Amino acid sequence: MHKLVPGQSRKHGLPPGTPVFVGQVREEAPEVTLFDYDEAQFKTERVTDIAGCAPLKDKPSVTWINASGLHDVGLIQSLSETFGLHPLVQEDILNTNQRPKVEDHGDYLYVVLRMLQWNDAAGEAIAEQVSLVLGRGFVLSFQERAGDVFDSIRDRIRAGQGRIRKMGADYLAYSLIDAVVDAYFVVLEKQGEKLEAVEEELALAPDRATLRRINALKREVLMLRKSVWPLREVLSGLERAESGLLSDGLGVYLRDAYGHTIQIVDTIETFRDLLASTFDTYLSALSNRTNEVMKLLTIIATIFIPLTFIVGIYGMNFKYMPELDWAWGYAVVLLLMAAIAGAMVLYFRRKTWL
Amino acid sequence: MHKLVPGQSRKHGLPPGTPVFVGQVREEAPEVTLFDYDEAQFKTERVTDIAGCAPLKDKPSVTWINASGLHDVGLIQSLSETFGLHPLVQEDILNTNQRPKVEDHGDYLYVVLRMLQWNDAAGEAIAEQVSLVLGRGFVLSFQERAGDVFDSIRDRIRAGQGRIRKMGADYLAYSLIDAVVDAYFVVLEKQGEKLEAVEEELALAPDRATLRRINALKREVLMLRKSVWPLREVLSGLERAESGLLSDGLGVYLRDAYGHTIQIVDTIETFRDLLASTFDTYLSALSNRTNEVMKLLTIIATIFIPLTFIVGIYGMNFKYMPELDWAWGYAVVLLLMAAIAGAMVLYFRRKTWL
Amino acid sequence: MHKLVPGQSRKHGLPPGTPVFVGQVREEAPEVTLFDYDEAQFKTERVTDIAGCAPLKDKPSVTWINASGLHDVGLIQSLSETFGLHPLVQEDILNTNQRPKVEDHGDYLYVVLRMLQWNDAAGEAIAEQVSLVLGRGFVLSFQERAGDVFDSIRDRIRAGQGRIRKMGADYLAYSLIDAVVDAYFVVLEKQGEKLEAVEEELALAPDRATLRRINALKREVLMLRKSVWPLREVLSGLERAESGLLSDGLGVYLRDAYGHTIQIVDTIETFRDLLASTFDTYLSALSNRTNEVMKLLTIIATIFIPLTFIVGIYGMNFKYMPELDWAWGYAVVLLLMAAIAGAMVLYFRRKTWL
Amino acid sequence: MHKLVPGQSRKHGLPPGTPVFVGQVREEAPEVTLFDYDEAQFKTERVTDIAGCAPLKDKPSVTWINASGLHDVGLIQSLSETFGLHPLVQEDILNTNQRPKVEDHGDYLYVVLRMLQWNDAAGEAIAEQVSLVLGRGFVLSFQERAGDVFDSIRDRIRAGQGRIRKMGADYLAYSLIDAVVDAYFVVLEKQGEKLEAVEEELALAPDRATLRRINALKREVLMLRKSVWPLREVLSGLERAESGLLSDGLGVYLRDAYGHTIQIVDTIETFRDLLASTFDTYLSALSNRTNEVMKLLTIIATIFIPLTFIVGIYGMNFKYMPELDWAWGYAVVLLLMAAIAGAMVLYFRRKTWL
Amino acid sequence: MHKLVPGQSRKHGLPPGTPVFVGQVREEAPEVTLFDYDEAQFKTERVTDIAGCAPLKDKPSVTWINASGLHDVGLIQSLSETFGLHPLVQEDILNTNQRPKVEDHGDYLYVVLRMLQWNDAAGEAIAEQVSLVLGRGFVLSFQERAGDVFDSIRDRIRAGQGRIRKMGADYLAYSLIDAVVDAYFVVLEKQGEKLEAVEEELALAPDRATLRRINALKREVLMLRKSVWPLREVLSGLERAESGLLSDGLGVYLRDAYGHTIQIVDTIETFRDLLASTFDTYLSALSNRTNEVMKLLTIIATIFIPLTFIVGIYGMNFKYMPELDWAWGYAVVLLLMAAIAGAMVLYFRRKTWL
Repeated sequence: MHKLVPGQSRKHGLPPGTPVFVGQVREEAPEVTLFDYDEAQFKTERVTDIAGCAPLKDKPSVTWINASGLHDVGLIQSLSETFGLHPLVQEDILNTNQRPKVEDHGDYLYVVLRMLQWNDAAGEAIAEQVSLVLGRGFVLSFQERAGDVFDSIRDRIRAGQGRIRKMGADYLAYSLIDAVVDAYFVVLEKQGEKLEAVEEELALAPDRATLRRINALKREVLMLRKSVWPLREVLSGLERAESGLLSDGLGVYLRDAYGHTIQIVDTIETFRDLLASTFDTYLSALSNRTNEVMKLLTIIATIFIPLTFIVGIYGMNFKYMPELDWAWGYAVVLLLMAAIAGAMVLYFRRKTWL
Repeated sequence: MHKLVPGQSRKHGLPPGTPVFVGQVREEAPEVTLFDYDEAQFKTERVTDIAGCAPLKDKPSVTWINASGLHDVGLIQSLSETFGLHPLVQEDILNTNQRPKVEDHGDYLYVVLRMLQWNDAAGEAIAEQVSLVLGRGFVLSFQERAGDVFDSIRDRIRAGQGRIRKMGADYLAYSLIDAVVDAYFVVLEKQGEKLEAVEEELALAPDRATLRRINALKREVLMLRKSVWPLREVLSGLERAESGLLSDGLGVYLRDAYGHTIQIVDTIETFRDLLASTFDTYLSALSNRTNEVMKLLTIIATIFIPLTFIVGIYGMNFKYMPELDWAWGYAVVLLLMAAIAGAMVLYFRRKTWL
Repeated sequence: MHKLVPGQSRKHGLPPGTPVFVGQVREEAPEVTLFDYDEAQFKTERVTDIAGCAPLKDKPSVTWINASGLHDVGLIQSLSETFGLHPLVQEDILNTNQRPKVEDHGDYLYVVLRMLQWNDAAGEAIAEQVSLVLGRGFVLSFQERAGDVFDSIRDRIRAGQGRIRKMGADYLAYSLIDAVVDAYFVVLEKQGEKLEAVEEELALAPDRATLRRINALKREVLMLRKSVWPLREVLSGLERAESGLLSDGLGVYLRDAYGHTIQIVDTIETFRDLLASTFDTYLSALSNRTNEVMKLLTIIATIFIPLTFIVGIYGMNFKYMPELDWAWGYAVVLLLMAAIAGAMVLYFRRKTWL
Repeated sequence: MHKLVPGQSRKHGLPPGTPVFVGQVREEAPEVTLFDYDEAQFKTERVTDIAGCAPLKDKPSVTWINASGLHDVGLIQSLSETFGLHPLVQEDILNTNQRPKVEDHGDYLYVVLRMLQWNDAAGEAIAEQVSLVLGRGFVLSFQERAGDVFDSIRDRIRAGQGRIRKMGADYLAYSLIDAVVDAYFVVLEKQGEKLEAVEEELALAPDRATLRRINALKREVLMLRKSVWPLREVLSGLERAESGLLSDGLGVYLRDAYGHTIQIVDTIETFRDLLASTFDTYLSALSNRTNEVMKLLTIIATIFIPLTFIVGIYGMNFKYMPELDWAWGYAVVLLLMAAIAGAMVLYFRRKTWL
Repeated sequence: MHKLVPGQSRKHGLPPGTPVFVGQVREEAPEVTLFDYDEAQFKTERVTDIAGCAPLKDKPSVTWINASGLHDVGLIQSLSETFGLHPLVQEDILNTNQRPKVEDHGDYLYVVLRMLQWNDAAGEAIAEQVSLVLGRGFVLSFQERAGDVFDSIRDRIRAGQGRIRKMGADYLAYSLIDAVVDAYFVVLEKQGEKLEAVEEELALAPDRATLRRINALKREVLMLRKSVWPLREVLSGLERAESGLLSDGLGVYLRDAYGHTIQIVDTIETFRDLLASTFDTYLSALSNRTNEVMKLLTIIATIFIPLTFIVGIYGMNFKYMPELDWAWGYAVVLLLMAAIAGAMVLYFRRKTWL
């Protein structure tokens, strides 16, 4: 998924509130897009003049400005300043290792989320930090790279589908959060499939690759968990917030989204329990295999070592060994040995080793 | 029991409040049945005209409408709209992966439960989501398929047995919840039997099938736990609710049902502890078995390898080996070897290996 | 101790408040005994006419009615009705799988406890549900079978020893609870002895029986824990209760009993930790034993396999093998082999394997 | 350290508040000593007439009476009655298995502590219950045997060193508690040394004695933990207590002592984690050793079994075996075998087994 | 990192509030440096006359006095007394095993932190206790040795960079705490690298050194955790503190730093989970290796033991063994044995052992 502790230390020694981008610098150009809508109409465009957005703040329509590509620190800074964000918020937007949280700054709410998108090619989820700023009549969203889980919201704004055009900026912010939460279910489902594949493998022929897969899955689930637990607090925090920015009718929606995060947390905890079981099963499969190997060795040794002893006896060079001179000596010894071997095989069969 | 993460992702990208059925589509026709009763009389019928139920809402008698078969989204929607349910509630009724919860919507309480029924044929519990809506004088119940744990309640209404006909819609809702909780005991008892069977197997002859059974049971208990923990919160939520829909006398009943969920939770936690023990026992049985195999090998090798060495000596072709010419050489060597073998056997017996 | 999930499911489908006895039906006749006392005098008798007890309720003296044998449902019902108990309380008295709890019903407090008595013959504790009802001036107690931990209380009432005759019904109820709590210490002590026996066995010669003993003890401790944890809540519930039935002076006694339950809980948690250690020790003893077996095999094989190879060499039938014709060939080879064997023994001794 | 569940059951069946000493009866005579001091002067003596201490209660100076030797129940009782202690407090003083706790009885505070003293001879800590009673102007302390951690306090009173003579009875009580807490650090340090010794042993040559040492240490840490956790509550309870017996200025001292208990708890939890690691390391050392043994066996067997086969071939008695008649046959076979053995050795070296 | 329980016991028996340095005594001379600044100007110097600093306390400018080298107890004492610190605070400054905490002493806040600095040479973090005292217009800081994480703050004061010169002493104290927190990220990153190195090693060729590395890392993470958990409480304590020493505008900064500690705690918990996994992987690698060894032994034994038996047969000395006289007997037996060996090899290949 991603590194355990990303380059946070790059910031070490700088004064608090210094905006530094700590993520991976990308080639793609940053892009700022604008949606401005009310019930009757909507407008969408790519923004080039950021300072020119300032008047939108005070218009009665809902304004949504989405910036993708945080490595252009200057752009993020000018956008933040246009909308009057606190230096620490600017720092947090760029510090892409934030724990999900919500902060009430009076004039605006600042929400940090971790957006997961399933990448089929890599067979794993791609994580990215999304910052939302909900002000009076506007929402700013910041994401690390182009591509997100918000396309259905854009479609709904364009089509005037559902409630979105009839409601305020707070509902837009909720919709963005809800889209992020919904995308977790996709990732969970994929990980559920992986888990089931691992369990099947364990039942058939587990090897070291299985253990690697179990460990990789463990780590993915751990990372997912690290993103979702604080998300739960974010949503219950929003629900309980006494900010004038959130209308009364939004409560029921936030509770609904909160319920979803609880469900995700429950499922993750179940995954953890099941993963612990898979490791136990793997260990016992190893033990079983050692057992099998040992059994084969024991069967071979137990049958042939006594026989080898018998043929050894008649290989001795004593002068007076009466059996050696018997006409049927050889045949009798062969038959005796066959009988011993047969008895052994029966014994092992009764022990269900054969 | 059921898939780890069912088709929730089918909803990904839709606006909140869109009613989508995420469960398994069934062949059976959906069915809506009505009970309408007061202390003096009762009426029951299959409903075909849903809109025609609207007047029942305001009658003083208690109205119970039960809908089974959630895959008919239109039917559910028209029923929901007749009784004025919030779009998010409609969505939740159809989203059959809800975590049990209770929501106070002012005019009505919305309760989600997970109903378990033991299926003897499959040897496991079948889980299904049940939604209850308690309004002033009416209860709506929604279930995924026909067949439920409510037959005894229907019988009691028909027979006028117990308190049910004398009390209001809140008591009916409580009775439905109580029936769901009671059915958990049946499942617990069956799982308790499975656990005891596994423990017996472990004491006799554990094999890989035992491990599979342990793991299956672990997973069942995990799923059960995931259903019951939130149920506990549902019942304590109802008990503490300050809704006018719940009469004062109901408190003692809700507390009683709450006590039952606590008892179920306790038993589940005990199961988890015992299941962890069974795995440990399985692992140590494997270790014991390896020990047994090793012992056999060691006994055979320790007895015959030295003997084979001795016969090897007298198979050497040196010209001057005085023993070979002795008349009793052969017999003495045979006796010597018998003595060595006997000593070994005694040694192993003293070590309690034989 | 007892079954994991007893016959609770026998009640499935009955209306709430139906009194059904779910425990084991006994042969012994149920028995109801009465104590009625104040500071000056006391009276005790076997009750046959239950309805005739009604006037005792309102007398200023303290009345204690103890019923043993819950399988006589009619008797329990008539007693309950004489003292005006709620149908759910009647149900709970008979449902002998209750979790310990306390309920304030205004006119009376209802307390469920689990009474443990050590049975020396069985070598384990016998558990039984005890229900107490504390009303104004009277205490009812219900137990599954004859024989309890209350004899010392009966003696104290008879002898007028201690405070009991000078105080009210609330002190009697406390005394009964305290006697139940005190009996836990006896069980703990016995289990502590078992645990120490197991630990000694582990240090000497652990076998499968040891594991069985560990698992049995684990299960007993689990059951004990399931009884004591809620007991703690019962006592803190009583201490905080604002019921007029409890006099002010009782607080210090309840706090004292509460302290005892905490102490029991602490000890149980310690037992759990120690039991987990014993299993670990058992597993490592198994590992050690495999090691021992392997070492013996390796010593034997490492000494004799090379020697067998040497004697094999001189058993070859090559025409030109100069050693075979030497007069001292045989002796030299024997000495060589003795030297090799000696070196091996020294080597194993240095490795502390011998 | 001490038995898991000491003789608490000796009290079973007695009325609450009966003073019974449950600890080990000692030979040494009980001893009661008195300190009476204010800023200007101090007096210390052995008390023989306990009733004669009554007037000290009301003197403005600070009175400290320390009783050691709880097996003289009469002495403890007369002391308790002189200072007006509740019967349950008397019982608790003698019941030496109390969990540390604080109780506010209005006129006095009753504190139970567990005092640990390191015993170098035994190589373990000796635990003992200490009861403190803080009244207006006096402190009573009760301990099981002579010898305690309070000598430095006695010295400070005698010398008038530090604040102790200038402050009240509450400061004295605090000083006693603080001395008990300080003594825990000594025990912790000793156990830390033991833990480090075990870890060193594990790195060198772990054997069964190591496991015994780990288990013993685990148990000691468990017992220590059982003493310290409630101590934490005692100190936070005292800090928050609204008793008039504690002057305002004492808060900062109690907070300080509370901080020490937190530090002790932290260290104990760290010990537990490290002890769990040591067991894991022990288990893996066992596994490693089995591996070593197996490797040796495999090396010997893999080198000599094929060679033995070869010499076996030339020990066959076929009439027509051309190699047997070659002049260099013997030498060639010897060389061949040397080559095979050499190849095997190289192979094992590459596998780093040799 | 450091000893489990450092020399705290050196203080045992001393009166509370006695300043004793418990750390390691160093050679380097203690040093006291002063910063005094306001928005317009700043001054920095090495302090020799400590009493001379007293007037700075009341100047409107911000005064920062940093003392390094706690082993000079007299120096610390005179500094503490100049600024009126409580004796317990003096004691805590010198007792370098304090748990991080914050204490409100009215006139000043006392904060204890644990400062970590990564030492590249040692490959581990060096821990040191830092005490901060925030008074009205001044900050005192005490550290165990020269060298800290505050250089960037000194640079910012000198350069007038950022907000620091414009704000009060509370902001300076916050900056110091923030610098300490920031330094944790560096340590985390290094430990993350170690963890990844261990994981790679596990995938390639784990040996005992790997286990040692895992255990060392476990211990480091444990120590880190012990430092960070209380730090979290320190920051939330400061945030909620109602001290007049903290200006309103500081809340947002403290919340920010609090967020960082939460993030650190999260990462540490993830480390712990991953470290537990690495141990499991190590154990299973050991099991796998035993398996490999066993397989080799079994292959060799299974191929050669039967062959050795066959050659043994034709080494017997019976008079009448017809095969021995056949012209092709030798060749046929050789071919037969080759066939058996070939079949075995095929068998093992099908079992994927070869």
